[in-house]
Amino acid sequence: MVDIDTVISLAKQRGFIYPGSEIYGGLANAWDYGPLGAQLRFNIKRLWWQQVVEQRPDIVGLDGAILMNPKVWQASGHVDTFHDPMKECQACHRRYRANDLDTSNCPNCGGSLSAPRDFNLMFKTWIGPVADSTTPVYLRPETAQAMFVNFRNVLNTTRQRLPFGIAQIGKAFRNEITPGNYIFRTLEFEQMEIEYFVEPANWVEQFEQWAQWMEQWAQQLGLDIAALHRYEVPADERAHYSQRTIDFEFDFPFGRKELWGLAYRGDFDLRNHQIQSGEKLEYTDPMDPTKKFLPHIIEPTMGVDRTMLALLLSAYHTETVNGETRVVLRFTPQLAPYQVAVLPLARKPELAALTEPLYQQLSKRWRCDFDTTQSIGKRYRRQDEIGTPYCITIDFDSVIDHAVTIRQRDAMTQVRVPLNQVDQYVHDQITPTS
Amino acid sequence: MVDIDTVISLAKQRGFIYPGSEIYGGLANAWDYGPLGAQLRFNIKRLWWQQVVEQRPDIVGLDGAILMNPKVWQASGHVDTFHDPMKECQACHRRYRANDLDTSNCPNCGGSLSAPRDFNLMFKTWIGPVADSTTPVYLRPETAQAMFVNFRNVLNTTRQRLPFGIAQIGKAFRNEITPGNYIFRTLEFEQMEIEYFVEPANWVEQFEQWAQWMEQWAQQLGLDIAALHRYEVPADERAHYSQRTIDFEFDFPFGRKELWGLAYRGDFDLRNHQIQSGEKLEYTDPMDPTKKFLPHIIEPTMGVDRTMLALLLSAYHTETVNGETRVVLRFTPQLAPYQVAVLPLARKPELAALTEPLYQQLSKRWRCDFDTTQSIGKRYRRQDEIGTPYCITIDFDSVIDHAVTIRQRDAMTQVRVPLNQVDQYVHDQITPTS
Repeated sequence: MVDIDTVISLAKQRGFIYPGSEIYGGLANAWDYGPLGAQLRFNIKRLWWQQVVEQRPDIVGLDGAILMNPKVWQASGHVDTFHDPMKECQACHRRYRANDLDTSNCPNCGGSLSAPRDFNLMFKTWIGPVADSTTPVYLRPETAQAMFVNFRNVLNTTRQRLPFGIAQIGKAFRNEITPGNYIFRTLEFEQMEIEYFVEPANWVEQFEQWAQWMEQWAQQLGLDIAALHRYEVPADERAHYSQRTIDFEFDFPFGRKELWGLAYRGDFDLRNHQIQSGEKLEYTDPMDPTKKFLPHIIEPTMGVDRTMLALLLSAYHTETVNGETRVVLRFTPQLAPYQVAVLPLARKPELAALTEPLYQQLSKRWRCDFDTTQSIGKRYRRQDEIGTPYCITIDFDSVIDHAVTIRQRDAMTQVRVPLNQVDQYVHDQITPTS
Repeated sequence: MVDIDTVISLAKQRGFIYPGSEIYGGLANAWDYGPLGAQLRFNIKRLWWQQVVEQRPDIVGLDGAILMNPKVWQASGHVDTFHDPMKECQACHRRYRANDLDTSNCPNCGGSLSAPRDFNLMFKTWIGPVADSTTPVYLRPETAQAMFVNFRNVLNTTRQRLPFGIAQIGKAFRNEITPGNYIFRTLEFEQMEIEYFVEPANWVEQFEQWAQWMEQWAQQLGLDIAALHRYEVPADERAHYSQRTIDFEFDFPFGRKELWGLAYRGDFDLRNHQIQSGEKLEYTDPMDPTKKFLPHIIEPTMGVDRTMLALLLSAYHTETVNGETRVVLRFTPQLAPYQVAVLPLARKPELAALTEPLYQQLSKRWRCDFDTTQSIGKRYRRQDEIGTPYCITIDFDSVIDHAVTIRQRDAMTQVRVPLNQVDQYVHDQITPTS
């Protein structure tokens, strides 16, 4: 597998990922997504939303606020238990995550370290003009709670009956003092999360269906399936709310780590919110109105940032072509930042006369790049490095035969296609035949 | 125009917008978007991103972190000048925005109010385990700065030349103590923002083009154009960075207020960041490498939340049909949460045999609702109230003639369409012919 520095460098150079606030020396564990990275993220999220929310009758979307009433985080257990044990150096006062450090001396100055103390991972802020006298609010450390808190609202305003899900895409924040491993662990991150509500008796079967769905989704995204592993999390490692968890781990260059999670949360969340809020959150069986119960929850969670990193790693390939190394990102056409690049061989009016209408036509339907700089070979290499599946070259023959050359990224095969069939050709290549 | 309480009530009942953290008594000026609201927002953002980023060769996307190095907000002027003057009651210590209150006595207790004092509108938080000793970081009060700070990165990693733009969709946060007017003014809000970099001499022309683009965009969204007004902001009302600003105002039920903004920011931002960061942010004219200068910036900004509110207000219509009041949301088919509703007349196996394959087919391509409850009339009304443009009814004749009835939302016309032509019919109706 490619090493992480190679990916960081390519992602910086090609405009996928920049260090956050770079001109001010950065901000630890914060990253800005450049033009191609922003597009790749958008493509991941759009595909997820289409498949999870728009195409499934049993799942509806939600978009909850990041700032919630602080009682939510009392009920969820985050105020009391969302801690990392930290050790502090008695000399330089630097702090370290106790889990990352089994020495008793500070790696920075050699001073001696305190015993571990708990440190809450939620970011605090204050609403209103004064920070001292008012209750803090928290930046949500997960998107899930918005879906639990709105369970009753969703039930009342849709016609959903068990089993059904609520899905959400949104930012979450964790005040982590820990090696970031690039975009693997960041202060803010984006989650794509489903809370799937089921009858208690059906959880085992539903859990397995979701595990399979996640593997299919990985395949569809183009993740390296050989690098993906189910890890059955043992009881003593599971979060406080979970009775069963599968971590989908991925072989990152820095080790095998959690990519996605699938947790069976039982009725932990609805029960606590029912107790704390005093609102009834029970579900009434539509077949038997005397049967009221708290649904159990299965939670498939995916981080956009980790998904993107795993995608970059899976897509990255090198090969030798004519004695030179070719770097190519093998994104699927659905996810590639650009799907098509339009490349006139030279900057000549007779080529521009063909190129511009073609670009106009194609860009209505496909994400199109347009490049007139440098040699055609260099332009192919650049498109390979950003993962564009199809390059369309307009050359001087095009003026005569009204056709263009379409080059496929992976096989590097080239075909001649009449100008008026290019759009259809791209469509036939890109659209899945299902 | 419809009054705001009617819209709030409909939006709550139909699952567009719920009060944030409602089961815990809410959180002032925070709202959660329910299934239909989340979908409507997603549709607005997807359309914007398609048209602004994917279909334009001169604009690239960006997705910057919410947490930035605090020096960014020094350079931008937000630490020093992003204030609201507040008056505090000497008796009950409640605080008020000075602009909202021209009395000298507290509206709450009648106590006397202090002279106005400045209160910064940025939310503060702290990275790391201690809140007291470290520098605060801010939740970004606008998305714009990520685009300025990454100007050099974008220039180096794309082939963009002036004029070109960077576009971003993302959350911003303002600690406002002020009447919210529903989702008009919220603690967190989502911006769709373009920073368009131009040669200084061309700003007047480019500014006018963007003003026109925004009006066309309003039309395409289906906003009530008669309620939209250009307001040329006079010098003494403009933000500190702007040399010209047009507010696009909308006639909300609570008054004519800013919907979108278009600001000419000159080189204020790049100049300050160049000075503060010490990094060169100049642009080199590709035709004349001796010509180096700071581009000027034109900034079209749109809030997702205000756009959504204006859309709900524009779409809302009532009319009398057969002596009954019909409420209908006239969303365009592109933006409507559901584009099609599939409605079998009764829950019978012979209808289900036709309905299920039809739903499967349509939901691959269109956002489809599916409803088997209550009378067909009630179901039509419900779809009208959530703005679904086409209702497809499968009745007992369908079993014989293999055709269905398609009802158009606004005209309430009904046509009989063969089952195997429904997908094409919907396509012809919905797809713009341009």
